[in-house]
Amino acid sequence: MVPKRIFDYDSVEFDRNLNALVVLDQTKLPCEEVFLTLRSPEEIFDAIYLLKVRGAPAIGVAAAFGLYVCMLSFEGTAEDFEYEFERVKEYLRGARPTAVNLGFALDRMGRCFYGVCGHPVEDIKKALLAEAEAIKEDDVEMCRKISENGLALLHKNIGILTHCNAGHLAVSRYGTALGPVHLAQQRGLCPKVWVDETRPLLQGARLTAYEMVKSGMDATLICDSMAAVVMAQGKVEIVMVGCDRIAANGDVANKVGTSTLSVLAKHYGIPFYVLGPTSSIDRNCPEGKDIVIEERPAEEVTELYFAQRIAPVEIKVYNPSFDVTKAELITGIITEKGIFRPPFDFSAL
Amino acid sequence: MVPKRIFDYDSVEFDRNLNALVVLDQTKLPCEEVFLTLRSPEEIFDAIYLLKVRGAPAIGVAAAFGLYVCMLSFEGTAEDFEYEFERVKEYLRGARPTAVNLGFALDRMGRCFYGVCGHPVEDIKKALLAEAEAIKEDDVEMCRKISENGLALLHKNIGILTHCNAGHLAVSRYGTALGPVHLAQQRGLCPKVWVDETRPLLQGARLTAYEMVKSGMDATLICDSMAAVVMAQGKVEIVMVGCDRIAANGDVANKVGTSTLSVLAKHYGIPFYVLGPTSSIDRNCPEGKDIVIEERPAEEVTELYFAQRIAPVEIKVYNPSFDVTKAELITGIITEKGIFRPPFDFSAL
Repeated sequence: MVPKRIFDYDSVEFDRNLNALVVLDQTKLPCEEVFLTLRSPEEIFDAIYLLKVRGAPAIGVAAAFGLYVCMLSFEGTAEDFEYEFERVKEYLRGARPTAVNLGFALDRMGRCFYGVCGHPVEDIKKALLAEAEAIKEDDVEMCRKISENGLALLHKNIGILTHCNAGHLAVSRYGTALGPVHLAQQRGLCPKVWVDETRPLLQGARLTAYEMVKSGMDATLICDSMAAVVMAQGKVEIVMVGCDRIAANGDVANKVGTSTLSVLAKHYGIPFYVLGPTSSIDRNCPEGKDIVIEERPAEEVTELYFAQRIAPVEIKVYNPSFDVTKAELITGIITEKGIFRPPFDFSAL
Repeated sequence: MVPKRIFDYDSVEFDRNLNALVVLDQTKLPCEEVFLTLRSPEEIFDAIYLLKVRGAPAIGVAAAFGLYVCMLSFEGTAEDFEYEFERVKEYLRGARPTAVNLGFALDRMGRCFYGVCGHPVEDIKKALLAEAEAIKEDDVEMCRKISENGLALLHKNIGILTHCNAGHLAVSRYGTALGPVHLAQQRGLCPKVWVDETRPLLQGARLTAYEMVKSGMDATLICDSMAAVVMAQGKVEIVMVGCDRIAANGDVANKVGTSTLSVLAKHYGIPFYVLGPTSSIDRNCPEGKDIVIEERPAEEVTELYFAQRIAPVEIKVYNPSFDVTKAELITGIITEKGIFRPPFDFSAL
């Protein structure tokens, strides 16, 4: 069963009429629904780097279709095609170095290319499109399985706290952390969702709140610093968050603020679940401390979204893009292949 | 020794030329330094209610001078004076019901009044001014002692994390949580300060960052959700926060986000100190759960300070103004009378 759309569009689509990658610009939500029509490597790179398209799976799908779109207008020899294909592929890889799904999707496009690279250029293009479509279909199916696996943990009227946006907007359909929430809603469980606003990029307030309202969910927005208050009040029965990357030992890199929730959840005795595809598991990364934390621009903290600067210009700012949640604080990691429990062992994957 | 000013003004002053209460409008910082000239009960109520003047001690000083200023223009019988005095006093009390210093200062003005109420109206006015000035001087002295008591815990180059603004702006001079930090700076200890931005009213980004820059401190602004990251990196050696109210068992009500820091500090093995005057201790309040958490307007989360709404209009919002930190998570409560350690016993006060 292919999940129906929650909205009347997917956040990342290839438009056959426009021969372009069309993405919902998530930086403009919730005030405006702006769709971007992207064709050049620079446009696609910027859309990923500037978080116009975001969410690990959605980035992978966007990169796959994007790589195809960039090659679509190519005219030249097969040798030149390969050179240009490699150049664009590696260029796009640099847009979000910590998003393993980006590399995963680009590598898959690369394998597809080398499987057909003796063929005429037009056949290669068709194969790349088919591969990008397969990546998207696999993403929809992967999210469906994660959603079903997570749904098994939910009961009627359950209070669920989430951070950032690992929902319909972040993937091809349904979401990872929010996938079970959407399924629960559709099946009449009426979950009560607590939405962290998720500073500094406000993906919770802008994106998850938008997604909750669009899908008719009973949802309440809080500032990140208020999660402890609703936890102490007994209103949160489970925490569900997404992930950017999972180390081999089960440490999880995700949007900054996630590790705080894991510590709070342990303190208040609330189960803490991470949801994501097994492609997020990086078995070449032994543990969380091996993941280099990217710093993002200070202006995201002091200027972006504000009417005027909120801090004096002279103040130093530290803006880590994600944090690392230690495996010992995680109740379970929910993937399309089932729920992993600590001590985490992904060697059978 | 009276502490010198850190800035060239105090945040709350009685201006003898204007016969008015003059306060630095903290809602306009850090972009503009606007001084408000207040004379009517409504203006003074609004300045407190709308957090133009904020910080428990500063509110008390503003209310004391404010009550005097409101009575200054009174002309009439002694009986009418008493009626008006009581009316204004109780009206101002309602501006921030959880700020015990507000009630403390107003009660002290009341006791002063009833000590002189047989006297001519002009003498009563003089006595009220002297009492308000004494309240401010006591506040300066109280902060000096808290600062000295807290300074004993600091060593050279220590990493200190703070939340909200319990600094020079919040009191008559120096601050409670930031008092030891300012003293440490003046005495060459070069503290490294981590400043939580403090959603939703951004007092950390707007006020503490401003205060840090003005006093030449080595300070770095982070979002509230990033405190766990710098704690995990070993960059925070002590947490120092202020308090709105302390229950008899040592539970502390303070700006929302404080209790999160207490849980994180325990998890990372970092000492967590609350700093405030003994007047913040409410012995009529047995424990934290007896303190009713005020809810503030949703717009503080979704609109205030932003260029446009950051969340869809249909989303529910929960905006508790403060949270309660459990006594068992507090390493010590630093007052002008010394450092209290758990189990807390304030009965000797």
